[in-house]
Amino acid sequence: MNNDRASDASHHATLSGEELGRIDAWWRACNYLSVGMIYLRDNPLLREPLNVAHVKHRLLGHWGASPALSFVWAHLNRVIKRDDLDVIFMAGPGHGASGVLGPAYLEGTYSEVYPDKSEDAEGMQKFFKQFSFPGHIGSHVTPETPGSIHEGGELGYSLSHAYGAALDNPDLIVACVVGDGEAETGPLATAWHSNKFINPVRDGTVLPILNLNGYKIANPTILSRISHQELKALFEGYGYTPYFVEGSEPSEMHQKMAGTLDTVISEIRAIHERTRANGNPERPRWPMIVLRTPKGWTGPKEIKGHKVEGSWRSHQVPFSDVRGNPANLELLESWLRSYKADELFDDNGQLIAELRELAPQGPRRMSANPHANGGVLRRELKLPDFRDYAVEVAHAGKVLRENTQPLGQFLRDTMRCNMNTFRVFGPDETASNRLQAIYEVSRKVWMADMLPEDDDGGELARDGRVMEMLSEHTLMGWLEGYLLSGRHGFFHTYEAFAHVVDSMFNQHAKWLDVCKNHVPWRASVASENILLSSTVWRQDHNGFSHQDPGFIDLVTNKSPSVTRVYLPPDANTLLVVADRCLRSTDCINVIVADKQKHLQFTTIDEAVVHCAKGMGVWRRASNDEDMEADAVMASCGDVATQEALAATAILRERLPELKLRFVNVVDLFKMQPVTEHPHGSTEREFDSLFTVDKPVIFNFHGYPWLIHKLAYRFRNHENLHVRGYTEKGNINTPLELAILNKVDRFNLVLDVLDRVPRLQGRTAHLREDMRNAIILNLNYAHEHGTDSPEISEWVWPY
Amino acid sequence: MNNDRASDASHHATLSGEELGRIDAWWRACNYLSVGMIYLRDNPLLREPLNVAHVKHRLLGHWGASPALSFVWAHLNRVIKRDDLDVIFMAGPGHGASGVLGPAYLEGTYSEVYPDKSEDAEGMQKFFKQFSFPGHIGSHVTPETPGSIHEGGELGYSLSHAYGAALDNPDLIVACVVGDGEAETGPLATAWHSNKFINPVRDGTVLPILNLNGYKIANPTILSRISHQELKALFEGYGYTPYFVEGSEPSEMHQKMAGTLDTVISEIRAIHERTRANGNPERPRWPMIVLRTPKGWTGPKEIKGHKVEGSWRSHQVPFSDVRGNPANLELLESWLRSYKADELFDDNGQLIAELRELAPQGPRRMSANPHANGGVLRRELKLPDFRDYAVEVAHAGKVLRENTQPLGQFLRDTMRCNMNTFRVFGPDETASNRLQAIYEVSRKVWMADMLPEDDDGGELARDGRVMEMLSEHTLMGWLEGYLLSGRHGFFHTYEAFAHVVDSMFNQHAKWLDVCKNHVPWRASVASENILLSSTVWRQDHNGFSHQDPGFIDLVTNKSPSVTRVYLPPDANTLLVVADRCLRSTDCINVIVADKQKHLQFTTIDEAVVHCAKGMGVWRRASNDEDMEADAVMASCGDVATQEALAATAILRERLPELKLRFVNVVDLFKMQPVTEHPHGSTEREFDSLFTVDKPVIFNFHGYPWLIHKLAYRFRNHENLHVRGYTEKGNINTPLELAILNKVDRFNLVLDVLDRVPRLQGRTAHLREDMRNAIILNLNYAHEHGTDSPEISEWVWPY
Repeated sequence: MNNDRASDASHHATLSGEELGRIDAWWRACNYLSVGMIYLRDNPLLREPLNVAHVKHRLLGHWGASPALSFVWAHLNRVIKRDDLDVIFMAGPGHGASGVLGPAYLEGTYSEVYPDKSEDAEGMQKFFKQFSFPGHIGSHVTPETPGSIHEGGELGYSLSHAYGAALDNPDLIVACVVGDGEAETGPLATAWHSNKFINPVRDGTVLPILNLNGYKIANPTILSRISHQELKALFEGYGYTPYFVEGSEPSEMHQKMAGTLDTVISEIRAIHERTRANGNPERPRWPMIVLRTPKGWTGPKEIKGHKVEGSWRSHQVPFSDVRGNPANLELLESWLRSYKADELFDDNGQLIAELRELAPQGPRRMSANPHANGGVLRRELKLPDFRDYAVEVAHAGKVLRENTQPLGQFLRDTMRCNMNTFRVFGPDETASNRLQAIYEVSRKVWMADMLPEDDDGGELARDGRVMEMLSEHTLMGWLEGYLLSGRHGFFHTYEAFAHVVDSMFNQHAKWLDVCKNHVPWRASVASENILLSSTVWRQDHNGFSHQDPGFIDLVTNKSPSVTRVYLPPDANTLLVVADRCLRSTDCINVIVADKQKHLQFTTIDEAVVHCAKGMGVWRRASNDEDMEADAVMASCGDVATQEALAATAILRERLPELKLRFVNVVDLFKMQPVTEHPHGSTEREFDSLFTVDKPVIFNFHGYPWLIHKLAYRFRNHENLHVRGYTEKGNINTPLELAILNKVDRFNLVLDVLDRVPRLQGRTAHLREDMRNAIILNLNYAHEHGTDSPEISEWVWPY
Repeated sequence: MNNDRASDASHHATLSGEELGRIDAWWRACNYLSVGMIYLRDNPLLREPLNVAHVKHRLLGHWGASPALSFVWAHLNRVIKRDDLDVIFMAGPGHGASGVLGPAYLEGTYSEVYPDKSEDAEGMQKFFKQFSFPGHIGSHVTPETPGSIHEGGELGYSLSHAYGAALDNPDLIVACVVGDGEAETGPLATAWHSNKFINPVRDGTVLPILNLNGYKIANPTILSRISHQELKALFEGYGYTPYFVEGSEPSEMHQKMAGTLDTVISEIRAIHERTRANGNPERPRWPMIVLRTPKGWTGPKEIKGHKVEGSWRSHQVPFSDVRGNPANLELLESWLRSYKADELFDDNGQLIAELRELAPQGPRRMSANPHANGGVLRRELKLPDFRDYAVEVAHAGKVLRENTQPLGQFLRDTMRCNMNTFRVFGPDETASNRLQAIYEVSRKVWMADMLPEDDDGGELARDGRVMEMLSEHTLMGWLEGYLLSGRHGFFHTYEAFAHVVDSMFNQHAKWLDVCKNHVPWRASVASENILLSSTVWRQDHNGFSHQDPGFIDLVTNKSPSVTRVYLPPDANTLLVVADRCLRSTDCINVIVADKQKHLQFTTIDEAVVHCAKGMGVWRRASNDEDMEADAVMASCGDVATQEALAATAILRERLPELKLRFVNVVDLFKMQPVTEHPHGSTEREFDSLFTVDKPVIFNFHGYPWLIHKLAYRFRNHENLHVRGYTEKGNINTPLELAILNKVDRFNLVLDVLDRVPRLQGRTAHLREDMRNAIILNLNYAHEHGTDSPEISEWVWPY
């Protein structure tokens, strides 16, 4: 039925002959530029016969996806201009850059941003040469591309990025071309369900355009090789109305695409009129387009008897060896000339005025739309005073609190102050992670069906601003799209399952690094804030599969320019760190803080001072005043800190003559030299805390080797003994898990005894006690299923 | 229409009253056990009134998903027994263990495997107590669970695991219960498309059973909150025939489920008869079941006015505080007694004979099916002699070859020798990674539509054994399912995008570690072999987003018992390593080897010796015979080795008096102490290669800090200067990228000059030359788009 409507549209001649001619000419100009980018280093307008000197030495780039991308762009321009629409373009197909760079150049944006790529023959020559050329730009839609907030180097995220950009932008349309290769990835396959989280009253529109060009690098695509009936059912099942635009003959396809776009735009408008009138919308069936075109459309149809247009052979460079093979040189020239560049560009090499008119003006150009350089739209987040949420700590180490719970209140009021520019994202775990105070201000958005019982604690609402879906991929994609289009956000997840989005973290870090350091015209965007909660040490009943503190290892491999890691030991330090992260730009801030109840150590004022330094001595936990310490006990992480403090308490009680210094690290990169990371320590700073020759017992939240990886250049590194998670666990009580990995108080005491030479021989009794304590506590846990009251009710005695 | 057929089935009374009664009784026994596991530490059969001493101190576990799992299990048992079917069970819903452990116990398997959990009151008490109890088993279907090859701790992989197990097992049915929470994940959402890769003649059947219990931890699920029409369309779009079994009244649901299972089994049989008769099958529409049941089915309907059955409140423990609240104790007792355990278990506490008969016998029990302990079915891989594929290396460092190409031939013949037990998996990149020789023996399996042009180089076949889909998640899931059910496989992917499956690697490593070290009844399975190709150093036109060597960092965080990493420097070492990996069991072997052309250094005999040691001195590259070396040049990785050798060649030519030792590392874990990893080095081994006091310039394939993380305990660590990828890149020539990250020959020469004290002051000229060479080569690259012939045609002069 829907299909019929699409066909109907195509039977009318939407475009006049003249309109069709112009739009086709504009598209031919795009295709000409795409081929030029791949092949030419000179003679850009073919004003002289093509010869080998004009051809690049090494032919690199990807032709296959490009023609359909510029086809869509050209048609979107028609409706943008006609209806003054606000549209950004998302290029999902891998390596589609030439299909996007061409339009950006024709619209003049490219020359505005890079004046040496001017709108004339000389500029075009540079524009061609730089493409896929060492030291210049690649064939993905990288940060250097105006109009792009989605590189597509790693496939799978175009649609979630698109939905993220559409949130809270009621007048924006995000036209998202989804590649049929990309559509096979998991992240993309579930991102279609994002339509259950889009409120048509408040949010903008995503128009997915699935481009079935039929092939990946070397294989057909699944979605291009199932029946029309299955394809239609699939997208209806995902909740869309699919419109099919299928074919290869350009003039027919222009009419079909124009007609379908008109239908689709009216449908979007009708949805908005309908839902915005009553203000309490049901989920509409959003339109989408299935665009079936040949891969490498308008390229060589056949070479040496092998199909090229409409085949995987069009994926990259359809034919190489142009410099050495005259037949190929001829083929290239006739291919280029088939676009009739002489009719498209004037004597100077600029697109002729009649065609320039086809593009919208200024910020309405998709290549210049400010939503695609979101920093220029970003408003400062209005933050409440984090001090107002502080936990009262009259005596350090006496009170138990869920560390993340005050943060939830802080985020609640942050949301209250920024109701159109801030969102919180988490996979079904906002309450589990103790952040549920947020719901007092805004519930979870839910556009799928509601049931009466949802009113009883379901916390769902059509206009909710908390995003929960059981897909870390979709959440991260939404968040990235939201941030890159100029807004603010906070993502929280189970620590172990942050690894689900390792590669998305990598790609976003790379994007930010390039923007920050190499693309001056990009304005700063809000940092991506990631809270890892439900951490390794408190997987009491989830066990081994839920224990993995390695996400931060990954973070330390990416550019120091954009990576930050914080491990606040208690609720107040978490508040201070969160405030800092929410204010920062162009970074990925990772905060590790458990949701369970923990002892509270710092007042809010102490927390401010401690977090500003990033690491420091805790005086009350040390007894080395005015003397040389025998050893340093250091900690990083909430559970690690508690156990380290408990160990020092035992030592101070049992061996009062032992002088210990206690150091806590909040800002992980303090463990690196400042020459390696902007948050790093100078040698002097590091040595003054960790000494240059005393044993340091470092109790760490994560894998212990990470500390060595960061700190290996410091002088006292060889005396650094790090404890951390060593991949040992099952169903365990908190203390039992700590003991298995030797981060518990008793093993830490033994560690100190082992490493302070002057104690040798005087500690047999204490050692014996520690070993007994370990055995007794394990027995208790196995008998009762919990830690002993002595452990679970332990408070810090100082 | 399909829906009508399902409804039809439910109108007939498939089960006689007696059959219905028995199956319901068996299911009640399962549910009784589930509740017992969560709540009881004693009085397992309620032979005395329940009192607080019988109740666990800490209530842990997950009730919500369990009843539907055992419901499915009970019904599968009926058809397995009736038709002598070979079926394994995959439990997708998170935390569903109690719904699987109950059946395993009732079938007797649990007591066979764990004799202390005997089929009597005493055994049942232990069976209850151990659940979610410190030191014992968790509420996921962990490796300790007989009948499980899928833990489900991290959600998303049940369906790809199921399809992997079904491959090449024509008579096997894998009944895969997919949770509606899990169904929101990306990996699961695309795994439905696995049906395009199942050949009904040769492969077994996956029967997906989507359990819509409606809720996740705290939210409704998307698929339970869309219309029937959308849901049906979605699964028809995915290529299935969905049958709906929906309701909550047990006796009605038993009839519906039995009727539907009968229909579905006949349909599977009809597909097999139809396709196996002609031998060249088209893709059938496989049946699937949508089972809509209340979460926490048969549990308390309401507590204090809040809905519990059929709500997220049933997710974990429906009500706690049983020991402190007499009302809750009463509620628990009446809930437990609602299952009428007295009618189900005999005086000893064993399931009554009449119900025991309902389960199949011996290996037909899903809890004892050998496919779910695949090691017992595993046959040794028949391997051709890797020497037959060796590259001829008459002179080291003179010939260029694609390192992975001979491996492709080796894998081709490995496949030829193991046509039912070996598969190769890769995302659209088998040819791109130069492994296409495999196609000579077996093409890519493709059950979606074929086109005539596929015959021209498409390499597709209905009976192909190479698995290519653009979803690393699905491929890894297939591979894991294939391995855990007793077969062999090889996965290859782009190095940077291995991070897409970081978390799957983590979970599989944890699974293997537990099996190997804690579950003696599990037989050894073939190792998971992962080739990372298209590596960081040769992303000439893909650029920054494709540069990431960090997957191996992740590997080094997991248990040394199961992790292996190899970086063979050339084609012959790659062959030796691959042979070793394919022979190994219970590990994850990661091999890093680039696909591009590289110089060949080792003859196959040298490769055998070198790989056996894992690392060693390359004599021909060293000039420190019988003398003390001034410095050690070490390398690990193909490009790293070539540049390091080139650096030594420059140094030997220009400073013949400088004595250098050249060390190459193939087995990365050789860099760790043997106390940390079974492949590690003794201090003596390490010191004898790397000296105890000489500078070591270590040119590494990956992030340089990884080497420090591994080697920090060794004596000469402070003289170890590691070069590697430091997150700098764009579109670059190979040399340019090396220079940016300082792993190139010229910078390595400078490194040596900087670190050998006796050279100070005599090297100004050479330094100047190196700096000039860097500038000249960068200029050349930017002018020509390639490296200079001097670089690209360089051969090793020794």
